[in-house]
Amino acid sequence: MRYPHDKPPVLSLTPGPVPVYPEVLHALSRQVPYDDDLPYSAKYEFVVERLQSAMQLSTKPLILQGEPVLGLEAAAASLIASDDTVLNLVSGPYGRGFGVWARRYGTQVVDLEVPDNQAIDSHAVSDLLKRYPQTAVVSVCHHETPCGTINPINEIGAVVADHGALLIVDAVSSFGGMNTHPEDCQAAIYVTGPAKCLGAPPALTLLGVSTRAWAKMKANPTAPRGSVLSILDWEDAGLGGRRFPFTTSIADINALDAALDLYLAERPQAVWARHDLTARTFRVGIAALSLSIWAASDAIASPTTTVVRLPEGVSEAELLGDLRARYGLLVSGGRGPTTGKAIRVAHMGPAAHPLHAIAALSALGGSLQRLGFDTSPGAAIEAALQVVELST
Amino acid sequence: MRYPHDKPPVLSLTPGPVPVYPEVLHALSRQVPYDDDLPYSAKYEFVVERLQSAMQLSTKPLILQGEPVLGLEAAAASLIASDDTVLNLVSGPYGRGFGVWARRYGTQVVDLEVPDNQAIDSHAVSDLLKRYPQTAVVSVCHHETPCGTINPINEIGAVVADHGALLIVDAVSSFGGMNTHPEDCQAAIYVTGPAKCLGAPPALTLLGVSTRAWAKMKANPTAPRGSVLSILDWEDAGLGGRRFPFTTSIADINALDAALDLYLAERPQAVWARHDLTARTFRVGIAALSLSIWAASDAIASPTTTVVRLPEGVSEAELLGDLRARYGLLVSGGRGPTTGKAIRVAHMGPAAHPLHAIAALSALGGSLQRLGFDTSPGAAIEAALQVVELST
Amino acid sequence: MRYPHDKPPVLSLTPGPVPVYPEVLHALSRQVPYDDDLPYSAKYEFVVERLQSAMQLSTKPLILQGEPVLGLEAAAASLIASDDTVLNLVSGPYGRGFGVWARRYGTQVVDLEVPDNQAIDSHAVSDLLKRYPQTAVVSVCHHETPCGTINPINEIGAVVADHGALLIVDAVSSFGGMNTHPEDCQAAIYVTGPAKCLGAPPALTLLGVSTRAWAKMKANPTAPRGSVLSILDWEDAGLGGRRFPFTTSIADINALDAALDLYLAERPQAVWARHDLTARTFRVGIAALSLSIWAASDAIASPTTTVVRLPEGVSEAELLGDLRARYGLLVSGGRGPTTGKAIRVAHMGPAAHPLHAIAALSALGGSLQRLGFDTSPGAAIEAALQVVELST
Amino acid sequence: MRYPHDKPPVLSLTPGPVPVYPEVLHALSRQVPYDDDLPYSAKYEFVVERLQSAMQLSTKPLILQGEPVLGLEAAAASLIASDDTVLNLVSGPYGRGFGVWARRYGTQVVDLEVPDNQAIDSHAVSDLLKRYPQTAVVSVCHHETPCGTINPINEIGAVVADHGALLIVDAVSSFGGMNTHPEDCQAAIYVTGPAKCLGAPPALTLLGVSTRAWAKMKANPTAPRGSVLSILDWEDAGLGGRRFPFTTSIADINALDAALDLYLAERPQAVWARHDLTARTFRVGIAALSLSIWAASDAIASPTTTVVRLPEGVSEAELLGDLRARYGLLVSGGRGPTTGKAIRVAHMGPAAHPLHAIAALSALGGSLQRLGFDTSPGAAIEAALQVVELST
Repeated sequence: MRYPHDKPPVLSLTPGPVPVYPEVLHALSRQVPYDDDLPYSAKYEFVVERLQSAMQLSTKPLILQGEPVLGLEAAAASLIASDDTVLNLVSGPYGRGFGVWARRYGTQVVDLEVPDNQAIDSHAVSDLLKRYPQTAVVSVCHHETPCGTINPINEIGAVVADHGALLIVDAVSSFGGMNTHPEDCQAAIYVTGPAKCLGAPPALTLLGVSTRAWAKMKANPTAPRGSVLSILDWEDAGLGGRRFPFTTSIADINALDAALDLYLAERPQAVWARHDLTARTFRVGIAALSLSIWAASDAIASPTTTVVRLPEGVSEAELLGDLRARYGLLVSGGRGPTTGKAIRVAHMGPAAHPLHAIAALSALGGSLQRLGFDTSPGAAIEAALQVVELST
Repeated sequence: MRYPHDKPPVLSLTPGPVPVYPEVLHALSRQVPYDDDLPYSAKYEFVVERLQSAMQLSTKPLILQGEPVLGLEAAAASLIASDDTVLNLVSGPYGRGFGVWARRYGTQVVDLEVPDNQAIDSHAVSDLLKRYPQTAVVSVCHHETPCGTINPINEIGAVVADHGALLIVDAVSSFGGMNTHPEDCQAAIYVTGPAKCLGAPPALTLLGVSTRAWAKMKANPTAPRGSVLSILDWEDAGLGGRRFPFTTSIADINALDAALDLYLAERPQAVWARHDLTARTFRVGIAALSLSIWAASDAIASPTTTVVRLPEGVSEAELLGDLRARYGLLVSGGRGPTTGKAIRVAHMGPAAHPLHAIAALSALGGSLQRLGFDTSPGAAIEAALQVVELST
Repeated sequence: MRYPHDKPPVLSLTPGPVPVYPEVLHALSRQVPYDDDLPYSAKYEFVVERLQSAMQLSTKPLILQGEPVLGLEAAAASLIASDDTVLNLVSGPYGRGFGVWARRYGTQVVDLEVPDNQAIDSHAVSDLLKRYPQTAVVSVCHHETPCGTINPINEIGAVVADHGALLIVDAVSSFGGMNTHPEDCQAAIYVTGPAKCLGAPPALTLLGVSTRAWAKMKANPTAPRGSVLSILDWEDAGLGGRRFPFTTSIADINALDAALDLYLAERPQAVWARHDLTARTFRVGIAALSLSIWAASDAIASPTTTVVRLPEGVSEAELLGDLRARYGLLVSGGRGPTTGKAIRVAHMGPAAHPLHAIAALSALGGSLQRLGFDTSPGAAIEAALQVVELST
Repeated sequence: MRYPHDKPPVLSLTPGPVPVYPEVLHALSRQVPYDDDLPYSAKYEFVVERLQSAMQLSTKPLILQGEPVLGLEAAAASLIASDDTVLNLVSGPYGRGFGVWARRYGTQVVDLEVPDNQAIDSHAVSDLLKRYPQTAVVSVCHHETPCGTINPINEIGAVVADHGALLIVDAVSSFGGMNTHPEDCQAAIYVTGPAKCLGAPPALTLLGVSTRAWAKMKANPTAPRGSVLSILDWEDAGLGGRRFPFTTSIADINALDAALDLYLAERPQAVWARHDLTARTFRVGIAALSLSIWAASDAIASPTTTVVRLPEGVSEAELLGDLRARYGLLVSGGRGPTTGKAIRVAHMGPAAHPLHAIAALSALGGSLQRLGFDTSPGAAIEAALQVVELST
């Protein structure tokens, strides 16, 4: 039996866009209201309020009408003034990519780069800030999904705050799946989105903006205004009767509404625990399969995506193909430094259940054996079950 | 981590009503049309035509507006005349239950009963028909879901046809999941429904009625007319402009439409193969877990539901509770003779995937260990993966 | 421009099944839960409780798994003992039809019949009960949709109660659209359904059963048991952990849940007022179009369906065809006595808005002019607008 | 009876975002696929192909991941080089607004402005091009929704093409509701979106780009690259295995897919005829109500939105409030020059039906009478019905 490639898989464990929660699908089928009529404006205010709860913010979050790449570019364009020095922290392709925008808007960009399987050390940040005391903005990607590694943004944030600089955080694929919030890391601008751990469709940016960030953007003459790249245009947009700069992505707002509902109703701590247990279950099984994760250590391994190194002689395409065709399991290949060298198995939102991790381990064991790798799926399952057993 | 009991499970492998296919859910959200307007009547005709294809019938199938218990009672009421002798074949509670209706409508009912883990032998049917040559109607349940056993209805049908009697077949939980059709078993009335292997919601009966059955019902003065129990009222209903006796269950017809679409598009042979592979994968794993199935032999084990005997000292409630709370896995307890003695794991429609069987084996192994049963989940997974591996 | 007949209409004002409320469609797309798992059983109990509120019952209502024709037949079969005399009140085809069932189960059936455009007079009921003091059961249809007439069931109920007989009420197309409840009319069995004024799909019967009715049914040896026609089997079904006699129509229960939500949230009084205003607006316009309603007087005209007499020389088929093809408006033709003589325009659930009545009057005026009838749509609209204007 | 303001209206005739077609809502509830798996990439290619059919393009259209304001800003940023002279045609606020972007990117911007109730004359364009022969880019808004006026873009396009300049067309609220396509007006960049006449939710830009436009953008050193404002990044994106620059708005693509399906299946000519008939029916009624449209003449009045001048003494807020509260009708107030002076009634996509125009005329007549304006709703309806009657 083979699963055809043009049909949806049986189980999809991809690092976003994730298959959304059933309740979110459900919300997508609500009629699209006129954005200038009360039912929508009241709902929009309500969504912003609950997003504020979810992000544990003392200021109002913003919703930008485009997936988080918009938020990241807008953050660079708005916060970085033309005479700013930027310290860009790089532990993978997303950090590296942000450097392009930083160079577009700032005068000088200093990269602090570590190997693609390691995390940034906050002491190194501190050292560099001493070397570049003029640094106005620091940027960091919290979770490099191509690598499955997590940077210690709360520690980095403390260092940056001490220095008096402003921190831009890309938390797109971590927020909602672990204990991270804008004010925990003292972010000036914290960028995330609904299509990863929140289990909603892509198309929106969720933005935490600090009071200091607002002040710096307002003082920045090159900060975009009258533009889709503007953050300033969206201050208080849709709140208290204030018009939107342009039409919002209404169906996606409907979906976000449902996703926030689920997140808060399940309780954030419980959601994070579910992601964490799933990832730990999976990593223990990976080790028992005689495989290794890409991350240099378990301590920096992401609870929302596990990147598994391909063993010698196994090709990415063959492995992904066999998993999908024989088991109906969809996972992702590598990206950037991990292309052709690893596969990525995500534990995000509706996919973050230990039972799915166990199913994935079984399929992975079966496919690897078929492709000639000597492994023991049985041992992997027994090890994984131990993790679940001990989780109470 | 515990899954709360008031939230949907992560994976549901219950013997119907099954979680429906996404496309079926989707179809349920279509607006409900007026049943006397062309868009609906054209669709109804189309659904009947495709049901005829799916059931491989040379006559038009009927759709009754109630779940299959309606169809079974209606079949007894319509086909069994008050002076009829009925031979009722009993290999489990559904066969036994049909006897109640048979006795209500016929003059004499002879039960041919086998133990609840075995199947009817067609030679025994032949022998009894010789002893009761006046037998007008024979009734049989194809798949006793409480026991996970399959009766050889095609062989039985041949014997009944030779004798000249009419056969009522309950194929509710087998049709759509294995190679069975009304005319294969020469059924007079063949009763099935959408909520098992077709992956649609309950609420309808799908009925194959042979030409001889129509003749006998029309000649039967006690066959219901002007009643929800009537089959006669529904002859050609909704076809060629003929009105329905009463309002049809429109939302459920929308859903059936989508389910038939999926069944025919995937190709029936492929659907049966998927059910069969899932069940075989699961049974091999069950044996490797040192468990046994309820059915006396693999030869009569159902491809759509596996009934697993509980080992000594493990209670049904504890096992079901642990599977659901720790793994989010919902399976069913026993029914009738298997109550408290077995659990039922279904492989029906959208649940019939080997990957789900493997996940269920893992969870079952984990929960049984926790409840003190000495078993080897690792061996089960390795054995199960072998079945998938060899399935090409 | 012509609207094609195989596409949905622009506006559907048919006397059920009605296009359902958007929220109900939405609910239909919820995943189908396993009926023996807590999320479903808890929901079922909740639905029963809210149905009890909506029906203003002091006893638990029942939900039967088939559209209301099942409930009506089941009521006859369960309540009418074989030696009972039944007084059957007939003001249209539904009342007449009930007589068939009454004769099937009772020993003597007395029909009290009035012309098909009039209502039953409770004094006549009183007189007949004196002539037939042995009468055990009285039956009445509240709203004859083929005629658009309403019987005074509360008055009739008082007469029947005084006599000590039991009343069966068919309130299928009135409940939810006007102020009527089982205990207001002292009904023994009160039958209604979701596909009319509640704006949900058909497939269920909603049943109010009085304590006296339970007692009589339990004492009735011919009351169905072990049958889809049984009411007794469903006593407390699904409540407090009690199993269902057979699988419920889960998708339709999901829909009913949403429909009850809407009904109670809008507040029943507001829902009835909306139906009443829509019907009054429409009737005033009908008179201004020089048309007349079928009902002998406005006093007995239904607030949920208006039956409009066709003027001389206008054929039903041509009028319905022109309304649908030119305006996209779907209304119904006559039924029974009104076939070919009238059209039926319903004001039920999501269709009960004065704006829809006004649109229908316009289209009706336009089509009638085209078909050669001398009428004044402008005067109709002005009269109709007056009704809305005065409604505050 | 009053309709509450926090509940959806009965009928919404707003100039976008419009309530979407039921089939589009339906499509929104499809599961969100992974964008790097075949089912999605195949669908995306298919959507682009059908969009190409709908736009009658000889080149591949682009889908940008943001509502059309993104497409318009991106067009300005990409096509206008820093030494370009731009001729910006202004007949309302959207044309005026484009001037802001034109000035941001070009060296000189010449505005050709007409009063806000008139249309641009192509001869005036020709004259100005002679005065400014260096003009590289001309920009025009096809349909100024705030004014309900249409500019003759095909004639303008011919003049611009003769001159050798490139034309940017904003056809956001006209495409799909009338006979307009990028190559009909020889547009370099033609910007439209799904949330107006196509009846889908907002969140996407649909872009026609000519071969000459591609060449100019590629030669433009300041054209955005590596930005959400980039058009260049999206050349052939998602086609033939080419990756997307960033994650697409998958749920909105699902919706667009369904909307294009509907548009092509109904046939574009039929869709335009439906919009045209609805607008003509409405305008005739408006005149009969003794009201006037904002547009200087019927010849330039939009078939997709009618802007109605408020009579003396009637306030916008009171009129909108009465229509919504008493009739459940939602229409829009003025924007820009029409703020406080007019209301806007749209005939777009699922709202473009003469029956809805007639209902709106009735409500408008009723509300205006109540607010003290002497008008004749009856005459309006009779006049409107004549238009429908003559439409065959």
